Order: sequence, then C-alpha cells, then structure tokens
Amino acid sequence: MKRHDRLPGFRDFFPDPVPHPDLARMAERLHLFSSWRKVVTRYGFREYDGPPLETLELYKAKSGAEIVHQLYHFEDKGSREVALRAEMTPTLARMIAAHARNYKKPIKWFSIPQLFRYERQQKGRLREHFQLNADILGEGDPTADAELIALCIDVLRALGLTQEDFVIRLSSRHAWESFFKQRQKDTTKEYLFYQIIDKLERELPENSAQKLAEMGIDYEEVRAFIEQAEPTEELQEIIDQLQARGLKDFVRVDYGVIRGLAYYTGVVFEAFDRQGTHRAIAGGGRYNHLIELISGGKVDMPALGFGMGDVVLGDMLREKNLLPPAKPSIDAFVQYTDPDQRMEVISLVHQLRESGRRVEWGLSPSGANRQWKAAAEMGATCFLSLVQEGLWEVKHLQTKESHQVASEHVSVTLDRLEKDTPSKA
Amino acid sequence: MKRHDRLPGFRDFFPDPVPHPDLARMAERLHLFSSWRKVVTRYGFREYDGPPLETLELYKAKSGAEIVHQLYHFEDKGSREVALRAEMTPTLARMIAAHARNYKKPIKWFSIPQLFRYERQQKGRLREHFQLNADILGEGDPTADAELIALCIDVLRALGLTQEDFVIRLSSRHAWESFFKQRQKDTTKEYLFYQIIDKLERELPENSAQKLAEMGIDYEEVRAFIEQAEPTEELQEIIDQLQARGLKDFVRVDYGVIRGLAYYTGVVFEAFDRQGTHRAIAGGGRYNHLIELISGGKVDMPALGFGMGDVVLGDMLREKNLLPPAKPSIDAFVQYTDPDQRMEVISLVHQLRESGRRVEWGLSPSGANRQWKAAAEMGATCFLSLVQEGLWEVKHLQTKESHQVASEHVSVTLDRLEKDTPSKA
Repeated sequence: MKRHDRLPGFRDFFPDPVPHPDLARMAERLHLFSSWRKVVTRYGFREYDGPPLETLELYKAKSGAEIVHQLYHFEDKGSREVALRAEMTPTLARMIAAHARNYKKPIKWFSIPQLFRYERQQKGRLREHFQLNADILGEGDPTADAELIALCIDVLRALGLTQEDFVIRLSSRHAWESFFKQRQKDTTKEYLFYQIIDKLERELPENSAQKLAEMGIDYEEVRAFIEQAEPTEELQEIIDQLQARGLKDFVRVDYGVIRGLAYYTGVVFEAFDRQGTHRAIAGGGRYNHLIELISGGKVDMPALGFGMGDVVLGDMLREKNLLPPAKPSIDAFVQYTDPDQRMEVISLVHQLRESGRRVEWGLSPSGANRQWKAAAEMGATCFLSLVQEGLWEVKHLQTKESHQVASEHVSVTLDRLEKDTPSKA
Repeated sequence: MKRHDRLPGFRDFFPDPVPHPDLARMAERLHLFSSWRKVVTRYGFREYDGPPLETLELYKAKSGAEIVHQLYHFEDKGSREVALRAEMTPTLARMIAAHARNYKKPIKWFSIPQLFRYERQQKGRLREHFQLNADILGEGDPTADAELIALCIDVLRALGLTQEDFVIRLSSRHAWESFFKQRQKDTTKEYLFYQIIDKLERELPENSAQKLAEMGIDYEEVRAFIEQAEPTEELQEIIDQLQARGLKDFVRVDYGVIRGLAYYTGVVFEAFDRQGTHRAIAGGGRYNHLIELISGGKVDMPALGFGMGDVVLGDMLREKNLLPPAKPSIDAFVQYTDPDQRMEVISLVHQLRESGRRVEWGLSPSGANRQWKAAAEMGATCFLSLVQEGLWEVKHLQTKESHQVASEHVSVTLDRLEKDTPSKA
C-alpha cells in the first residue's frame, strides 16, 4: 500500500539504530541543534521563533523574484495567500519591525527554523531543511560583521571542523557597487548585474560574457577584479578583527561570492568546504534596508545575519566521521522475570527514575538471559535483579562487579558503581 | 501597514523581555521542552520526528470524521492533497508500519511536534500548538498502560505541579463496550454511542438523553454507570501499579472520559486541573488496531500513547507562577569605550568565549556608565575593563570585589570570582 508513504522531499527522523542509511537520524539532528545552541549562546544571542506559515505577501515583496517561484504556497480556507516559511529573515524583520523599541540595541537573536521550498524534485534535494539563523540588528559598524563571521566560524569549529575543512569566502556588495558604477550609469541594471556575478561559477563563460556585454561590462574586467581579491577598507578591518581572535586563516577575500538575494547591501560571505565537493555550508551578509521595507518605513535599522542549513553540513560531518555514533546508553536495567514480582520491580524502577536516572525494564516478564542481552544492547551501566523480597543484586555490566543490597540501598550502590565506570564518554 | 502581520492563530516566540504579555515567550517554550525531554528520557523513551506536512489520505482514513473537517489542508503544486500535521499518531504509525522489524519491542518513542488545525477562529484558540507525544508499541500488557500514565504524571510533577493541581481521569473503552453490548446488539452504532458519551459534559442533558434514547439506551443508566466508577479488573491492576510507584493519588476512575477519536480501543485517560477551569492538559490511551490499519495489514502490534499540548499547560503553569522568570544571565561583559582598544577587547572577548563562557560586549564604543548598566541588565556575573595595554580590571557585579590582572590571567580570576557568586540558581 504505497498510499501511506511520506511526501517526496521530506524526512522522517528515526531513533538509533536507523533502519536504513538513507533515512535521517534524530541523534544527528539533536547533536547539531545542541552544538549550535551552545556556541550562539556564548556569543550572547537569544533564541526566538516564528510561525512555519506566513502570508505570501511577506515573501513576495521582500525576497526578490528568484525565491518566489520556489515557494511552497497555497490559498488557505479563509482565502488568504499563504506560504510555508521559506527563509527566516522576513519573519525576523516582521517581528523586529513590530517590537524593535522594546529591545536594547544591538539586538542579537538566533533561531533554528524548519524551512520549505517547492522546487522540481532533484536527486538529493529536499523540500525542507533546518537552518540556524543568527542576526545582529541595530549596529552598522564592521565590528558587527566581524562578530557574526567569527560566530559562523566558531559554530563550525565546535562541530569538529578545522581550517583544513572549510573556508569563509568574504565579499562585499560595496566593492561590486563601485565596480559597477564606474562602468554603467544606469543603476536600474545594478541588481541584474549582481545576479550575473552570482551565477558566474555555474554558467558557461561565454553566456556570462554575453550577458555582461549587453550591459556594457567586459567579462575579462570582471574576472580580473575577482582575481586581484584586494580587500576594501571595510573588509580589511573585518580581517584584522578576525586575526585578533586567531581566526584569520578561516577567511579569504573572494569577490566570486555576491549572494543571490536582492536585499543584501554590504559585506556578504559564504562558508564552503575546502574540497569544494559540497554546496555552500552557510551564507549571509548585511541587509541594512530590509527592516525599513518590511515595517513600511516605521522602523529603520542596520542589520546582518547568516543561515546555516542542516543538510550540506550533516553530509560533510558524516563524511568526516564527526557525528555521534549510534551508541545508546541508559543508567540501569531492572530485570522482570516473574509476574508476581511486578510490584516490587515497578517500585524500584520508579525510585531510581525519581533519583534522575534513565531506567528501563521489560514491561512484560521474559527470560533472564534475554533481558541481560537487552540491557547490554541498550548500553546499560548496571543490571538489577530481585534475589528475594527486599533484596536486590546490583551488577555492573562492564566490570561485572556485583553486590546484594536491600531496596533502600540500591541507589547508593549505583552511585558508587557508576563512579567506577571506566571512561564512560 | 497591516499587510505584514502574522497569520491569525499563530504565535511568534520572543526572547525576554517580551514586549507585550499577550506575546509568547521563547523562554517558556524552551523550559517546557527541556523539562519534557528530561523526564521522558528517564523513562527510556527515544526521540523521533516526522514531516510537518503529510498526505491528506493519512489523516482521512485514520482519525475519524471528526478531525478531518478541522484539517489545515490544500492541494500542492504537484496536485497532491496534503495537510499540515494535525496530530502525531498517524505519522508515528506510518513510520512504525514501514520499519517496525528493525526495532526491539516494546518500542518507546517520543516527539515534540508542532501541530496545526483550521477551525473557525475562537478567542484564545490557536491554529498551531506544540505537543509532547509519548507512545509505547508492541506491548499489550496493562503494565504498559501504567508505565505511560506514570510518565504523564511525572512529566507534570517535574514542572512543579502537585496532586492538588491536577488529576488523571482514568477510563476504559472496554468498560463502555460491555455497557453498550448489554443494551444494543447493533455494533455499527457503537462509535456513535462513544461520541455521545464524549460530548456528555458539554451537551444539555436533554439533548444527550434524546440521542441515547434513539439508540435504545437510557440516559439515567449512563449517568449511574459513570457515578458508580467501579474500576474494571484492568483498571484496578493499573491503579495498583501506580500505587507501587506512590502515584495512586494522582488518578481517579472516571467513565465520563472516553476520548473522541475513533481509533482508541482500551484504556483511555485525560489529565485535568483540579479547579476544572482549563481544558484537558493531556490525553491518551490504547489504539491497538491503528498500526495494522495504516500498514494495510502488513504490521500488527498493540500500541498506546498520550499527547500533552503546550498551550493549556503553559497557561496553568503561568497562573501558578511555575514558569522561569524573565531574568537573563551571562558570565561576563567586556567594556569597550575607545575604538583604539578594539583589537585588545575583541581578543579578550574571544578568549573567554573559547573557555565556554557566555560573553557580551558593546560592538561599538560607548560610555563606561552606560555599559555597566547594560551589563547589570543582562545579568552579567563579572564586568571587565581595560586599564592599560595587557592589564584588565575584573569586577564582580554583586560582591563588587575587583582585581587588576594581566590578560592571560583573566580566565583564572573569573573562575575564582564565579565560584564566590552568592546563590546563582
């Protein structure tokens, strides 16, 4: 019965052991999220979230034509044009526009939304992913850009990636803006020009050259500008600040990056793996006019942010063996072989859970050997079995050390045995 | 510009201080989720998740007519009838049906999905909420029911609620089944009967009486059956097992509860606040045939579970002052008054973050007093200011103890001062 499959492009997240390598592991997602949260919190960012459904209008006006045709949108029962959340920045801008005055600037917020798009299905491309979003609002100084880029680097470092694994390609719309204005007076063509630059690496050179020629710009000059990679004053300041943090070797100026979306205004950057086999790991930059746009002119503040998805990053960490192994662990397993003992078993199980321990038992009686095996598979530290009323055998699964103790002393005995566990990482 | 409001019935979750009491606090959501995760993990449950979008068919066939008209459904661009996830059990059943043989029984899984419905908007009723879902699959013994109900109780206890605050109303479809079959031979009317019982507390007695009379059942007999509250053998076993855990006083037999959904088959229960001012806090029960139904007969296993939403529970905890106060905290604030000092400031900020501390600074220079105030508002433990190149003053905000130390000794000095912090809960 194929009828009850999940929708194409969506993932189920299974507990370990995952039934098939193509299925997503919940343990990996939890590992990513907790690592992300740890680092952004160190940087003083606070968590927020918005709805997974927004008005289509919010995206239409804000994200440029190139994202709208990818939206997962529909008309709801109340005849509203709505869309599954495609990116977080419009939601953030909406929230900030409504309540900016209640928060001290700079505002440093993060979120881990699930995002959706409806593109034609390609091999390995999903219709949903999770994305860490970190944004700084209300600070125009390049220190904010440097702070955000340092965060992006540190988030990847905390996952075990090094400067051999990834690089931040640092660029600037300002640099491209002055390049453009020296060659073309018609600023209505400026965004079209950025889009050509954005596609440079994916297009045939002759196609790009022709499109550039049509707006009076020479392809070779563009190539030369990218190759000289001379940092602007602003980029140099950012690089110096990253150097003060010991993070300089994680970045390089690369004007080949410009970011496709219309709303970027200044410094932009993308994180790439050094082998270059993956798509971008993360990307972001300044979007100084978006809050003003979304608030209809009521609120105006500089802003910048980045997004880091879970799919490319997950693939990369998996390749490099940097994801947690599928090794479950619990603190204790309580044997249950005889239905007449169930009240005593249940009472002990509950007592140990009350003490904060993760405790498993069989729920229905079965053979002692089978349960010992189950305990080992669950990664239990200790195995407990009832010897006689009120008396328990407590056995350490690794060291095989065992003691017979009264019910009321089981917890203390576990404390001691748990301390002796060799290298429980 | 009203255009960029959020959709009705959806929540934005703001960091503290929340701009308006009607807006949702991210801190409350994080508190609920982490408390839920802690307790279910102690009980040996493993986390999973599915897509927030499923085929309409999955809900249509499985959840009974009463949920379908509430679904948030639409046709996607690929002409598929799809629905925003309305409850988690169909997704769980789909995942289990596909991969049950890869997991040891009993399977104990939990998830914290966001769920959606499209009902006519009522005051205070949302179109989305988050819900803890915990399920046990592959175990038919009442020990599993008792384990699940104990978990439901312990999850509420861990949030600070006591037996004065809430009660589990325990009931059984089996009890109602035998009541029904003694009075009516036509079993096609059985589910209709359950729906009348489910609505008893919300309907006028004369309406219920008339509907019951139409199927040859006497209203007074129904009322008498509910009032006698005699536990079935199965319910008595569950109560005894809860007593062995010291949780007996959290439950009472109450046949007024039957659960509306079609797929329940045995024990059912709901958690209610004792004052009775709120809707149900949680509800669940046995659904032994659902896996077979969803798998088209391929997989057949007994199952049971409960769901606990974040909205009613959140309201109740807020009323009882059991939610975390809006009191931010960071470990250190580094003063930045002079642009020439920025590299030294940045270097120290980074060094302290590398040591795992949560560190804030101003990003752009401002007056010392303003920064001291900002540090206090952020709940900083220590305040650091540059005295001269390489020399820092480290000051404890509460005790006012301060030391002048070289950059390389700042971290050790913080270690010491942090230890002296009075009662940092």
